[in-house]
Amino acid sequence: MKTTTAILLLFGTLLFTMCTPVEEYEIGEGTWVDLTHDYSEETLFWPTSDTFKLDTVFVGQTDSGFYYESYKFSTAEHGGTHLDAPIHFSEGKKSVEELEVDQLTGQAVVVDVSDKAEANRDYQITPKDLTSWEAEYGEIPNGAMLLFYTGLSAYWPDAEQYLGTTTRGQQGVAELSFPGIHPETARWLVENRNIKAVGLDTPSLDYGQSTLFETHQILFEANIPGFENVANLDQLPATGAYVVALPMKIKNGSGAPLRIVALVKD
Amino acid sequence: MKTTTAILLLFGTLLFTMCTPVEEYEIGEGTWVDLTHDYSEETLFWPTSDTFKLDTVFVGQTDSGFYYESYKFSTAEHGGTHLDAPIHFSEGKKSVEELEVDQLTGQAVVVDVSDKAEANRDYQITPKDLTSWEAEYGEIPNGAMLLFYTGLSAYWPDAEQYLGTTTRGQQGVAELSFPGIHPETARWLVENRNIKAVGLDTPSLDYGQSTLFETHQILFEANIPGFENVANLDQLPATGAYVVALPMKIKNGSGAPLRIVALVKD
Repeated sequence: MKTTTAILLLFGTLLFTMCTPVEEYEIGEGTWVDLTHDYSEETLFWPTSDTFKLDTVFVGQTDSGFYYESYKFSTAEHGGTHLDAPIHFSEGKKSVEELEVDQLTGQAVVVDVSDKAEANRDYQITPKDLTSWEAEYGEIPNGAMLLFYTGLSAYWPDAEQYLGTTTRGQQGVAELSFPGIHPETARWLVENRNIKAVGLDTPSLDYGQSTLFETHQILFEANIPGFENVANLDQLPATGAYVVALPMKIKNGSGAPLRIVALVKD
Repeated sequence: MKTTTAILLLFGTLLFTMCTPVEEYEIGEGTWVDLTHDYSEETLFWPTSDTFKLDTVFVGQTDSGFYYESYKFSTAEHGGTHLDAPIHFSEGKKSVEELEVDQLTGQAVVVDVSDKAEANRDYQITPKDLTSWEAEYGEIPNGAMLLFYTGLSAYWPDAEQYLGTTTRGQQGVAELSFPGIHPETARWLVENRNIKAVGLDTPSLDYGQSTLFETHQILFEANIPGFENVANLDQLPATGAYVVALPMKIKNGSGAPLRIVALVKD
């Protein structure tokens, strides 16, 4: 039965090889992690920006005898967990509704820079942070959703700890202090990798003390959108999660409230 | 080599059986279909409701020499493609942020009632519409996202055709005319099937002439949320698509702008 044994081995190997899925992300297998902060009166916004307000339309029993409640709200586009569309800093680039669902979904790459951000809350993520990550996990794949975990999300919604200030208005902007992505890193990504989007758990892609927002400019010029104030990134593995990031579909919007979730394999 | 042939056949069969995935929905394989209307000044709302307004914060070159644009907006919760949370009509039931991502994602079941709705724009979907669908496609699976295609979405955003009226205020409510889900169908679903959510391409789960909104009451009492003004349902197959429906995460909200998409196998 030597031939039979050989065939058994051959088919065993074939079975293993052919059953390994090309795409490893199967919806329905795995656990959804919500990477989104609530919108409420506590939601943090840029110091110069209008904030989120929910107003009651009706709450209670109607004259017709049934229970009913309903609200309306107002908000700036750029607060809470939200999308930055490329047009926010780059004329003629994509607005919110022009971003295809395909660009807002994909394999998560999660880069943990929390040690550095804890040591320096004005830390700017460097190209070396990415090459170090790649040395451990392999090259950032085409179409990746690149997410940075700085650890700042632990302070949400405490403005003093998260934004670095509770001051509103232009004086508040001058006092902002939080980590971000160095413009050189944005340039390295645009020139060397093919990512779909970038996200992080801080108020802005650029660090708090930025005045030119160069990281925004560089990424958006390349039509790469940003996700800001992302939550729960500590719950994602470095690779292997799948991100679905769906903004409210505002026509001509420069940004929008974002519901971002990730499927993590069990 | 008779034994070898038998083993070949055995392993061939095994290979086929074991490689058939348990879950047939693989993210990354397939095409995303956006089931969401834009938010703009054209977005349709209930006649008594505030509508969507986008206000400019800044558009143009800044003094610092870079391009920048930014907006703010206001809207009622219940207009455009949106979520109805159970608390909208059922006291103490789930509000927007209490709906887990797992309940907002799942296998699509698409029931086409467009022939009946075209013949009668005040048509109410019956339990028989569901049992007829099941006779053709099998029982509605546990955890299904149940979507009804009435064809009304073809008229969006023409208020006269879609809502049945352009009149605003209480008089407009009296003139509403569009199809919906009969309360008996809602009751049948709650008692006989185990669905996660219900959606359709009309302004309301109940038909336009409803005054008691019983379908809302019955489904929401069972913590089953609704998706209203859904778009592009004609692009989905009756079975086999996977829905991801992510509302803006409004704390204590009774409803919210919804981005709803579906993955359709190629």
